[in-house]
Amino acid sequence: MDYREAGVDIAAADEAKARIRALARSTFSAAVLSEIGSFGGMFRPDLTRYRDPVLVASTDGVGTKIKVAIEAGVHDTVGYDLVAHCANDILVQGATPLFFLDYIALGRMDPDRVESIVRGLAHACSELGCPLIGGETAEMPGTYGEDDYDLAGFIVGVVERVKALPRGVQEGDLLLGLPSTGLHTNGYSLARKVLFERMGHRIDTELPELGTSLGAALLAPHRSYLAALEPLLLRGKIRALAHITGGGFRGNIPRVLPPGLGARVRRESWAVPPLFRLIQRGGAVSEEEMYRIFNMGVGMVAVVAASDLHDVEHSLERRGETSFVIGSVVAGEGVAFE
Amino acid sequence: MDYREAGVDIAAADEAKARIRALARSTFSAAVLSEIGSFGGMFRPDLTRYRDPVLVASTDGVGTKIKVAIEAGVHDTVGYDLVAHCANDILVQGATPLFFLDYIALGRMDPDRVESIVRGLAHACSELGCPLIGGETAEMPGTYGEDDYDLAGFIVGVVERVKALPRGVQEGDLLLGLPSTGLHTNGYSLARKVLFERMGHRIDTELPELGTSLGAALLAPHRSYLAALEPLLLRGKIRALAHITGGGFRGNIPRVLPPGLGARVRRESWAVPPLFRLIQRGGAVSEEEMYRIFNMGVGMVAVVAASDLHDVEHSLERRGETSFVIGSVVAGEGVAFE
Repeated sequence: MDYREAGVDIAAADEAKARIRALARSTFSAAVLSEIGSFGGMFRPDLTRYRDPVLVASTDGVGTKIKVAIEAGVHDTVGYDLVAHCANDILVQGATPLFFLDYIALGRMDPDRVESIVRGLAHACSELGCPLIGGETAEMPGTYGEDDYDLAGFIVGVVERVKALPRGVQEGDLLLGLPSTGLHTNGYSLARKVLFERMGHRIDTELPELGTSLGAALLAPHRSYLAALEPLLLRGKIRALAHITGGGFRGNIPRVLPPGLGARVRRESWAVPPLFRLIQRGGAVSEEEMYRIFNMGVGMVAVVAASDLHDVEHSLERRGETSFVIGSVVAGEGVAFE
Repeated sequence: MDYREAGVDIAAADEAKARIRALARSTFSAAVLSEIGSFGGMFRPDLTRYRDPVLVASTDGVGTKIKVAIEAGVHDTVGYDLVAHCANDILVQGATPLFFLDYIALGRMDPDRVESIVRGLAHACSELGCPLIGGETAEMPGTYGEDDYDLAGFIVGVVERVKALPRGVQEGDLLLGLPSTGLHTNGYSLARKVLFERMGHRIDTELPELGTSLGAALLAPHRSYLAALEPLLLRGKIRALAHITGGGFRGNIPRVLPPGLGARVRRESWAVPPLFRLIQRGGAVSEEEMYRIFNMGVGMVAVVAASDLHDVEHSLERRGETSFVIGSVVAGEGVAFE
């Protein structure tokens, strides 16, 4: 008996690694001191411009959005999602990315698929100036179905300690919503159940209200808010950020508010995109549950001083970024909708 | 419809998070500036004793060893494995750990199981002085069977640039093997197929040659070599390290040798533990394939100058560490067994 009979194909793994290496190298900067294939990725951070640098690290997956990717046979967008999601998570602390690593586990080692996933990772990493310095690709027959896989991403960034967020949030501060590009990476178990099982749609069903196929709408990449927000962070114009991921508004906004403060959110202050309403109607999902699971069109919430609002809006506009005031910070706790 | 009907239990997730938080906190040092539950974990590294600090990061899983954990109903050891494996990977570059993050994905959110996994993580993190500063716990019905899960770990360490390994490896250097505690985290797909399917053993089969049950032997935790090797690294007595993981001897030793140099390994220089021989006999696995998949009793190989051998052996002995010269660095490439 050999490894291949046990379901592990080392030749396919070597082929996948060779393709990963080339893609990852395209994301490298002079700070990367190792090649892909080393036991550890080596990164020499330039910390000279920091007085008191704090490393900020986060890990995440893309959940069952992968199931949609498999159904559609499109695997680069979930790679992109993974990086954007992780970068947004450390941005919440005010940090900009240093480097990224990925974990890909598959039921069957398929070099084409791995290459496609990593192409998406590398694309996002290049956009964010965040080299992909390492990763693991594991063939795990038995844990994953033959056509199935999972992804986890790990990011490390840095922030000047005194500039770390949240800081200085006060009653009366405004909540500025930045638009999402779709479901991002949350709520896919419910969305799939409603859209495919209950409503009987297929991945290639064209829906006029979405202006595209269901697959394309569901796979719309999770966007990164780094480019839009970095100038404002550097200028100290953001008091807190909440990435609207699993747990939705109630789960994420309070995470960045100090004790004794809550949020009031006016639901009518932005237009919920049609995809969310489609899921809500199709599954008879309560309004409450929708805002607990989905981003509802708002992917990132920035807390800004009321006196900075025009400055912040103007800065965002100049970068082609839409934003809308969705509420304010109030005495109390949690999130109250109105 | 709600999230729970779609297979995602937010209440169970909250319960799991609460238990994780307490365990993770037990690993914290003063360098950790965030609580578990922040979007990103914040770590303030003390880099004052480094002239030119290089961050070294690695990610890994524990492969289908998880299947054995599930079968045995024991989940803390795979948590321990994950940390030890990652710490060994950065040790190969000469780095000592700064912090760790984990990704746990399950078919069904089971707070007891998550707690058990994280207890193992926290135990290893405490031992290694490497705080667990963040993680993700994802319920992914459909990707994982109801009783199934996967783990990925992510570690960041630091090394003084001029002390990074490998450095100065020369022809004539000796290969010093450090014993493994079992299969560590590699080869489980083959081991399970041979032991359970072909040989018909069960997880609780007591095997006299192992002196324990098969489950206990297979779940023996992956050991960390940090404590044994750190003093030698600080004194510059190690030229290279190879962590014997997936790919075995041929896959891992050449990764740390410079071009033009290979390794000669004398198989008779150490006693291969009975578990490996059991798998080999039971599956009629070739000797070649065994050394390509398994560590065969040697979990870490250190490359040392011949003139340092006695010093190194003495230092290891003083720490209660066994070691054996298993071969040498020779002109050529790859690994030649004799």
